Amino acid sequence: MNQGIANVRIVLCRTSHPGNIGAAARAMKTMGLSGLHLVSPKWFPHIDATARASGAEDLLEQCKVSDTLDEALSGVRLAVAVTARSRDLSHEVYDAREAARIVLEEAARGDVALVFGTEMSGLTNEEVGKCQIISTISANPEYSSLNLAAAVQVMAYELRMAAEQGAAPREKPLDLATFEEIEHFYQHLEETLVKIGFLDPNEPKRLMQRLRRLFARSRLEKIEVNILRGILRDLTEYPKELR
Amino acid sequence: MNQGIANVRIVLCRTSHPGNIGAAARAMKTMGLSGLHLVSPKWFPHIDATARASGAEDLLEQCKVSDTLDEALSGVRLAVAVTARSRDLSHEVYDAREAARIVLEEAARGDVALVFGTEMSGLTNEEVGKCQIISTISANPEYSSLNLAAAVQVMAYELRMAAEQGAAPREKPLDLATFEEIEHFYQHLEETLVKIGFLDPNEPKRLMQRLRRLFARSRLEKIEVNILRGILRDLTEYPKELR
Repeated sequence: MNQGIANVRIVLCRTSHPGNIGAAARAMKTMGLSGLHLVSPKWFPHIDATARASGAEDLLEQCKVSDTLDEALSGVRLAVAVTARSRDLSHEVYDAREAARIVLEEAARGDVALVFGTEMSGLTNEEVGKCQIISTISANPEYSSLNLAAAVQVMAYELRMAAEQGAAPREKPLDLATFEEIEHFYQHLEETLVKIGFLDPNEPKRLMQRLRRLFARSRLEKIEVNILRGILRDLTEYPKELR
Repeated sequence: MNQGIANVRIVLCRTSHPGNIGAAARAMKTMGLSGLHLVSPKWFPHIDATARASGAEDLLEQCKVSDTLDEALSGVRLAVAVTARSRDLSHEVYDAREAARIVLEEAARGDVALVFGTEMSGLTNEEVGKCQIISTISANPEYSSLNLAAAVQVMAYELRMAAEQGAAPREKPLDLATFEEIEHFYQHLEETLVKIGFLDPNEPKRLMQRLRRLFARSRLEKIEVNILRGILRDLTEYPKELR
């Protein structure tokens, strides 16, 4: 059994129905997961959450609640957006089974998050933008609306199946940058693009979204973030006379 | 897509909580299943069942209700008992994934049933005795109590995965840049890095090698190469006075 599963946190964003939080906690515990993070839940704690947890109340008691997704993703090596909808500017998309293998591989070396959106509308594009890959659950194209806790159950089940089979390790582990390091890089990149006039802050279009997607696909290592930020720093110090 | 999935019926025995019937119907429909059979439900129809079905009410309207498991299994080629507990005199036991393959294989030739027990105590030995094989869902040995609808969701999901026979295709194929386009980008990048003094041509170390590796991992699209080269172009035109 791969022990990395303990490093996988489940992040539920802006949940409307507290019963789903309890049911998600139960789903997690049945598969051996325990780290639950709630981002701006509409109601929590709530009697419905406790009722539906049904033996997994310990996960509710230990869960973390934050105002922003950024806080919930603090320190993670990899964030996976779980979504049913296809998106225009999508990241790399994996089915739940493939995503579970990738997640476990990274979880052997640090924290990983699976991020779920609201019951009605799922994740926003901005929330997806903070993740590196997308996982979709195969479903009936005419009715793909899994209940939130059911989606958590399927993802947690696939993680357990992958853990029991033992994920094949990547030949050389990547020393991946953390969420914060990558967000700081994006911020630095955006400032630089505005400064050089490539990005018009009044009409940003989808430039940053596109660049995020590009770098998300490459899954940046720490050393690479350092190099990229070094380039950005030198750019703005570079004297025009020498061009 | 294997069409046999339409021949798989879900049989719920002596369900206590009508909400679980609705949630099970929803779980089934998300995976393309439609045949729901209820054996002596405690409450049905019920407002909680309808509420939790949430778009799968058609399955509740068409479901069959019977007094005995025998009636619900009428005409099936294969009945599978879904159970968490290990049993003294067990049948052949398969995990959910293996069981799904067997079920689909039989469903291509006729009706097949997956049989679920009550929320509290599962299936009786007598009920299991009416089935030919047992399917278990891998779970945390210290807390293996899946919610009934969650167990239906996992089995239905495995059926769908087996029916799709592997990975879902990528939603939108990437319009990847050609070898030449990428090489021109690397050349442009290298010239720019030399110009701004980040790369010393007399001591290049492995900087370009590292950057190549980073972008190779992301598999650049044509439009991304255009954006990146646009940034490089604007950099060297950017007047120092405005910095």
